[in-house]
Amino acid sequence: MKKLLVALLVATALSPVYAQQALRNASEVKSPVINTDNSVTFNLFAPKAEEVKVTGDFLGAPAVMSKDENGLWSWTTPVLAPELYMYAFDVDGVRVLDPNNVYMNRDVATVTNIFLIDEEGSRAHNYRVNDVPHGTVSRVWYDSEGLGAKRRMTIYTPPGYEDSNENYPVFYLLHGAGGDEEAWIALGRTAQILDNLIAEGKAEPMIVVMTNGNATQTAAPGESAEGLVTPGFDVSRMNRGEFEQAFPDVVNYVDSHYRTKTDKAHRAIAGLSMGGFHSLHISKQYPDLFDYVGLFSAAIFPPEGSTSPVFQDFDGKLRTQFEKNPKLYWIAIGSDDFLYEDNKQYRELLDKEGYPYVYVETPEGHIWKNWRIYLTEFAPQLFK
Amino acid sequence: MKKLLVALLVATALSPVYAQQALRNASEVKSPVINTDNSVTFNLFAPKAEEVKVTGDFLGAPAVMSKDENGLWSWTTPVLAPELYMYAFDVDGVRVLDPNNVYMNRDVATVTNIFLIDEEGSRAHNYRVNDVPHGTVSRVWYDSEGLGAKRRMTIYTPPGYEDSNENYPVFYLLHGAGGDEEAWIALGRTAQILDNLIAEGKAEPMIVVMTNGNATQTAAPGESAEGLVTPGFDVSRMNRGEFEQAFPDVVNYVDSHYRTKTDKAHRAIAGLSMGGFHSLHISKQYPDLFDYVGLFSAAIFPPEGSTSPVFQDFDGKLRTQFEKNPKLYWIAIGSDDFLYEDNKQYRELLDKEGYPYVYVETPEGHIWKNWRIYLTEFAPQLFK
Repeated sequence: MKKLLVALLVATALSPVYAQQALRNASEVKSPVINTDNSVTFNLFAPKAEEVKVTGDFLGAPAVMSKDENGLWSWTTPVLAPELYMYAFDVDGVRVLDPNNVYMNRDVATVTNIFLIDEEGSRAHNYRVNDVPHGTVSRVWYDSEGLGAKRRMTIYTPPGYEDSNENYPVFYLLHGAGGDEEAWIALGRTAQILDNLIAEGKAEPMIVVMTNGNATQTAAPGESAEGLVTPGFDVSRMNRGEFEQAFPDVVNYVDSHYRTKTDKAHRAIAGLSMGGFHSLHISKQYPDLFDYVGLFSAAIFPPEGSTSPVFQDFDGKLRTQFEKNPKLYWIAIGSDDFLYEDNKQYRELLDKEGYPYVYVETPEGHIWKNWRIYLTEFAPQLFK
Repeated sequence: MKKLLVALLVATALSPVYAQQALRNASEVKSPVINTDNSVTFNLFAPKAEEVKVTGDFLGAPAVMSKDENGLWSWTTPVLAPELYMYAFDVDGVRVLDPNNVYMNRDVATVTNIFLIDEEGSRAHNYRVNDVPHGTVSRVWYDSEGLGAKRRMTIYTPPGYEDSNENYPVFYLLHGAGGDEEAWIALGRTAQILDNLIAEGKAEPMIVVMTNGNATQTAAPGESAEGLVTPGFDVSRMNRGEFEQAFPDVVNYVDSHYRTKTDKAHRAIAGLSMGGFHSLHISKQYPDLFDYVGLFSAAIFPPEGSTSPVFQDFDGKLRTQFEKNPKLYWIAIGSDDFLYEDNKQYRELLDKEGYPYVYVETPEGHIWKNWRIYLTEFAPQLFK
């Protein structure tokens, strides 16, 4: 087999696509290097470049890297707090993904490298794949009569689901504008967070259903018959409340295909940004469905002039929802979020009516770091 | 909602990570552009670069791109045959993924952009997500007693599985050295190929099980407790026949957790390269398990000196296997494959003994293009 391996490696190195990288990068350069003090060193071999910078969500302005005599550019961060970070290089104005790091996330139409600073006991430790029992993650196509399409969603079933006869509670977890059914599982680290919270006894074993909230799409870009299109924002059907109205199709599919607890006390819905908007309006449109509601950096108010039945009688529907005493109405937002004022206005409305809710404010803004924090905080409060 | 959207876009554009791309690339440059004649134009904005090349599996040597007065580099291929292609840019010696194409595949430690030239009726049309019923793809953790670990695998269940009470045949599909349980589903387009072949009535509805064939791993890089390590080849446990010997753990898990037909006539095993080696040795070690065996560009002969019981008595085990009359023993390889001679030698051995098999030879070598072709040819022959 060693002979085979050598032959395989030679074949790879000789292929024109790989030759450059195999010789220059893969074998020699390591990047990123997480140092023992939790600083991180980035390295890129680019001898002809005039300026190489690293951009990242741990940085304000891009950092200019230094070049050694061999053409290797490097830069080391200050000590970083445990977190999942993203970065990319800028080589003379061209955005370059690190050729030595295969770990990437796509956010809308932008792919970014990622790395994880981990520390036992930190929240980021929940974002890691740890040596704990793992749930199953499935991409499933359900039939939405309301939207007139077979549509794709991502479903997490907890460790032990397949070897049990029990019924499980269900948490519906919705993405934001520009996202899709891949967003929470990839950028949100949902499977890792749930695996870890369940293993620690902090969260109940639950099914997590991550839908595609874009009424214009049947599936994430590349996963539908539209082909390998460039992902983007499409608002053409957003204002119509169609996804919200058709949401019982999702619940019915899940309840008829999984061993679920089918009462309100065992259903939660939460989402980020547009998904928070969806969670707000779905839970008020169908006040007997969800006992747990989470608005993460949520858009709040219906579009002006929308004739969708979902957006009619806002106040009356909200009254009905709260008269039924949901167990948890949880609102979280970053202090720098561009939706902060809308949320403040909404909280004032809830306060005025005396509707109970829990409010959490974090630093920073409309970013995945916050949404992972909110998921990690929200999930342990469910179904207890 | 339009106001929200504008705000979201502004927030994205202002973030330091995205600013460069948002301004220069995403909004202005399209790449790749598939032209109406099936030539493809690549574009990259890199005004300071001295030389930009495109490398790809449709090219011998890298092609030098041309720069216009604004700093946009472009190059157009000749007309390309329908196929899934891969490419990357080389900017002054730095390997650069196309910032305007989010579609990528990872092969071992190399990430490459992809695009698909499609034509109705071509084989490549099967690699596309078409408007047909779709199966479910799940990442599942099974318990391998033989390997002493919980291990991850990818399972495709065909359209209709969830809404039926029927039992289904199972096809075990194994990756090569450096691959893992993500290889066939991503690079091999297994879900698309099976969806399409089943929709056309060419293949029987079947479950496809894609294991992780590296006895040293519990899961693909990034999906195990090892963390975000650089993928590589690890032969330390390859020679020991452990994965082959423990394979009944996989079959037992699948048969006890899915509605399967549990007889030999409804089980197939095939794999590429190291996975072909696995298929050969597993099917001969357990001659009552599989009626269909596929060796795709397979490694053949056991490592010299290995003491694994799997590799003892090669001739006797092969005799037993063929005495039991497998329904199909299918060997395929490219004429340029570095394993061609080993396969020739193996065919001579089979010929000498009069063991029946089907042999398919294609142009080119040890490449995914061939393995997708083999899957598309092999799957329709199963369970009929």
